[in-house]
Amino acid sequence: MDEIKIFSPATVANVACGFDVLGFCLDTVGDEMVVRKTATKGISITKIEGYDLPMETKRNVAGVAALALLEKVEVDFGFEIEIYKNIKPGSGVGSSSASASGVVFAMNELLGRPFNKTQLSFFAMKGEAVASGSEHADNIAPGIFGGFTLVKSTNPLEILELPTPHDMYATIVHPQIEIKTSEARAILPKEIVLQNAITQWANVGSLVHGLHISDYDLISSALKDVVVEPFRKQLIPYFDNAKKAALEAGALGVGISGSGPSIFSLNKGEETAHKVAEAFKNVYDQTGIEFNLYVSRINPNGIKIL
Amino acid sequence: MDEIKIFSPATVANVACGFDVLGFCLDTVGDEMVVRKTATKGISITKIEGYDLPMETKRNVAGVAALALLEKVEVDFGFEIEIYKNIKPGSGVGSSSASASGVVFAMNELLGRPFNKTQLSFFAMKGEAVASGSEHADNIAPGIFGGFTLVKSTNPLEILELPTPHDMYATIVHPQIEIKTSEARAILPKEIVLQNAITQWANVGSLVHGLHISDYDLISSALKDVVVEPFRKQLIPYFDNAKKAALEAGALGVGISGSGPSIFSLNKGEETAHKVAEAFKNVYDQTGIEFNLYVSRINPNGIKIL
Repeated sequence: MDEIKIFSPATVANVACGFDVLGFCLDTVGDEMVVRKTATKGISITKIEGYDLPMETKRNVAGVAALALLEKVEVDFGFEIEIYKNIKPGSGVGSSSASASGVVFAMNELLGRPFNKTQLSFFAMKGEAVASGSEHADNIAPGIFGGFTLVKSTNPLEILELPTPHDMYATIVHPQIEIKTSEARAILPKEIVLQNAITQWANVGSLVHGLHISDYDLISSALKDVVVEPFRKQLIPYFDNAKKAALEAGALGVGISGSGPSIFSLNKGEETAHKVAEAFKNVYDQTGIEFNLYVSRINPNGIKIL
Repeated sequence: MDEIKIFSPATVANVACGFDVLGFCLDTVGDEMVVRKTATKGISITKIEGYDLPMETKRNVAGVAALALLEKVEVDFGFEIEIYKNIKPGSGVGSSSASASGVVFAMNELLGRPFNKTQLSFFAMKGEAVASGSEHADNIAPGIFGGFTLVKSTNPLEILELPTPHDMYATIVHPQIEIKTSEARAILPKEIVLQNAITQWANVGSLVHGLHISDYDLISSALKDVVVEPFRKQLIPYFDNAKKAALEAGALGVGISGSGPSIFSLNKGEETAHKVAEAFKNVYDQTGIEFNLYVSRINPNGIKIL
């Protein structure tokens, strides 16, 4: 096989209570990429469609991730990459992660799968760092593993695959405003109140337990963020309104997707997910802010070959 | 049934990463209690053996817990309580919890089980507050439910039963020094570094996942406390030595039991648990500090009728 086309899905990091560690994978929105072997050694990006991103390998997240993988293999050929972006950069649903994860997944396939998923995540993390300024895997892990994931640590990189209750759907609203990840990080305090931290880890433990036993009520009550949301929601106009409307429409829980501005909800069943989408729409329709809506089941498999 | 005799086991709260929320139940050490119906209404404590504790109902944790339960039933009789304490107060393995939990468990049996385990935990929490100054359920929950528990919240009280891998044993060393719970709480900062909090909730999530899938390696790597132990270990002489020795002897993880001074380890298999006990012994034998050692499987059932 000399060429492969893949779909690299959008992902939601943090999942309310699990700042920097939890994530899940979407199904209905993602980038496509074509990766092919070339006689010329090295990595080149030959096409980017959809959004204006750097073509220079070392400045492109996919390029840097590809280079990180290439360093670990001895081959007498190279790779060229075509990126068809559907996930808007800066939307908060893992746009840069999708590019970084997709390319290393594709290269691994073309090479006969010498690397496992954790190793691929490690390479992708190197790429993601170009966009976010630091190495995180909370969007990468769900893209590469699928389903819900927990990044236990980044050094060494340890990723856990959590179970996904089969009737779980996400709804995402992406208000078209710009929040830079670096700004979203800067707004967070360096220290937090111990009591809030306790609440947060009780919720993380409860959410993990709830996913294992498919207890939607427990999942719902665990989907709370008392640490990050109070700060970051200030960056997202009408966040409180959108959250309230979604919960009233039946969402299990609502939170900021990654560093925003996208807002996610988790829902039991596709019908509820669509009702929540309607609720999000009703809120943002009245604001003059443009927005996109996505409804997606939780994608249990992650990146797929097309 | 007019009289019941029960065994109320010692428990370990916090479990390294899960400060204030996680706990597990021991099997080989605990108090015995006899509770019987009396013609006289109200609660009276008629005997306490083992340690010198208040006989006055309203000043005794078992008495206060019993009163909290009694308030919720209409009966034309009362209860008297005999307490045979084996768990030294202030040891850090849930001495006051065992008294508070034991009495409400016993009364519930005599009354024909009108209350569920969470309700019993609620009553016991009222008793425990007499000893610790605030309402906590992290020792009560494992005593009443057995196994590993997670206190999701205390208001409203929500307790989750986590799975217990079948080959899990605890080793406890109790250096005979006094630490008051209130002092152990006062030494903690009100605020903690966000990065440490993230590490802690990654570990809580990982531990819960590890218990579900019986992954002893994961459990081992999750049993770390970067938030509380650095402060509280100063109150426990030779803590670092004991921890190092236990880990070298094969313990999965080591931490402070509750607010100390007891130190716990979790271990795969009884043989390792005994090796760890030997390692603890070797450390404290050289210090001149008296100590007790316990090896126990994790008790999956909690309080039991004798």
